[in-house]
Amino acid sequence: MNAALPIGVFDSGIGGLTVLRELTQRLPGEDFLYLGDTARLPYGTKTAATVERYAQQAVYALVRRGVKAVVVACNTASAAALPALAAGNPGMPIIGVIEPGAAAAVAATRTGRIGVLATEGTVRGGAYQRAIARRMPAAVVTPVAATLFVALAEEGWTAGEVAAAAARRYLHPLFADAGAAPDVLVLGCTHFPPLAGAIREVVGDAVRIVDSALTTAAALAALLEEQALASSQLDGVCRFLVTDGEERFARVGPTFLGRAITADQIERVNL
Amino acid sequence: MNAALPIGVFDSGIGGLTVLRELTQRLPGEDFLYLGDTARLPYGTKTAATVERYAQQAVYALVRRGVKAVVVACNTASAAALPALAAGNPGMPIIGVIEPGAAAAVAATRTGRIGVLATEGTVRGGAYQRAIARRMPAAVVTPVAATLFVALAEEGWTAGEVAAAAARRYLHPLFADAGAAPDVLVLGCTHFPPLAGAIREVVGDAVRIVDSALTTAAALAALLEEQALASSQLDGVCRFLVTDGEERFARVGPTFLGRAITADQIERVNL
Repeated sequence: MNAALPIGVFDSGIGGLTVLRELTQRLPGEDFLYLGDTARLPYGTKTAATVERYAQQAVYALVRRGVKAVVVACNTASAAALPALAAGNPGMPIIGVIEPGAAAAVAATRTGRIGVLATEGTVRGGAYQRAIARRMPAAVVTPVAATLFVALAEEGWTAGEVAAAAARRYLHPLFADAGAAPDVLVLGCTHFPPLAGAIREVVGDAVRIVDSALTTAAALAALLEEQALASSQLDGVCRFLVTDGEERFARVGPTFLGRAITADQIERVNL
Repeated sequence: MNAALPIGVFDSGIGGLTVLRELTQRLPGEDFLYLGDTARLPYGTKTAATVERYAQQAVYALVRRGVKAVVVACNTASAAALPALAAGNPGMPIIGVIEPGAAAAVAATRTGRIGVLATEGTVRGGAYQRAIARRMPAAVVTPVAATLFVALAEEGWTAGEVAAAAARRYLHPLFADAGAAPDVLVLGCTHFPPLAGAIREVVGDAVRIVDSALTTAAALAALLEEQALASSQLDGVCRFLVTDGEERFARVGPTFLGRAITADQIERVNL
């Protein structure tokens, strides 16, 4: 593997750009190749078998173009497909967002009560519950499937009345009783960080909100060092592959990435 | 073509079940074969070229299994793919939901001001605007892209605070000034009928809400009569093909269909 190659980042669509944002800040001397499977999003309501198949196609496309590592920047795909991706790409460093998110949650909790806000698919698969239990067997993990948050983030409605009402509906049952509520809430979907303000309004100031993007960036940095694949010499170039809707990607993406995306950075691919 | 064959109904997912509901009521002596492309939904945020390709695969799957007519029970696919579907399946009667919806809107309006509530893809394609203009050139058509309504309906949140807040955010700008507001609002997405109550709260009692499912059923009945394909002898059997998530389809589908769906009615297919 060549340290001069870019780092591949894969997501079902645009939510993974919240992870790419942290990666570019943590690793400014690296280049990145991001693939968003925008034709087939969302993954969160699909079955694990279908998500695994789509993830394999996506990672194969990144590997074929030349990357030195792959970040699966999608909780649903991390939960459903990581073992298959590792088995299918021997020698390629591949990390997901679930293990780093679980590690951060366990480090942050004092009461052992951890809430996980995720898509239907991630909740059903139970990957967060297992990853947290491995580190802290006594933890009480309560998952909440918040399907609508994906659509809210994609619509750009991350603040205001609709986001507030949805956050109340999803989270009030879990946080109404402060004595029994979790003290840590994991944002277990890469679409959710832009909604952190609306979520904070419901859960209150005492709850630690864990965004796995930060810890994933740290985990990737450590992995690259360990395998002598780190670079501080590259130009921080980001290129984007999408399976549909370049125009929409350039328009909606900046909400997640935190900076502009220009048309010449985006290329359409078929998986 | 054989009158004893079922009628094929195609949608991106489960929204088309609102159309199937009207079809089964209008045509109780027919059988139906419904295909929901649940692995690849939603279509509303995809480009027209991708929707056209997916629709061709779906209709081909129905035709191969033997149907006597096809209803494209999805506004996005009707807008993007109907000409290509007709060209690709000569001799097969194929109708969409846009022309019947436009006809109903024109029949209902007194002021000529018509609102169309649809997905991003349907709005961008302009098919309703054109279909209404052909019938009533002086009509003033105002489209509103209501992407979040799809997720709300899929989540089953068709009433309550979140649906009300979303309806206000999408519709208040258009209906705030009663003197300039449309007198007809077309539900230009098959996911939207379950949200009619929340929509009614915002637009008021004077506005006619047009659901194209009703007029599509009437149009199909007329077409079958005309081509001597109508049947009153069949058992009203509905079978369902889905491309992913049979369990979810059986669980969420009844919100749209208005009656139970059992596991033995559903079959998984790959397109």
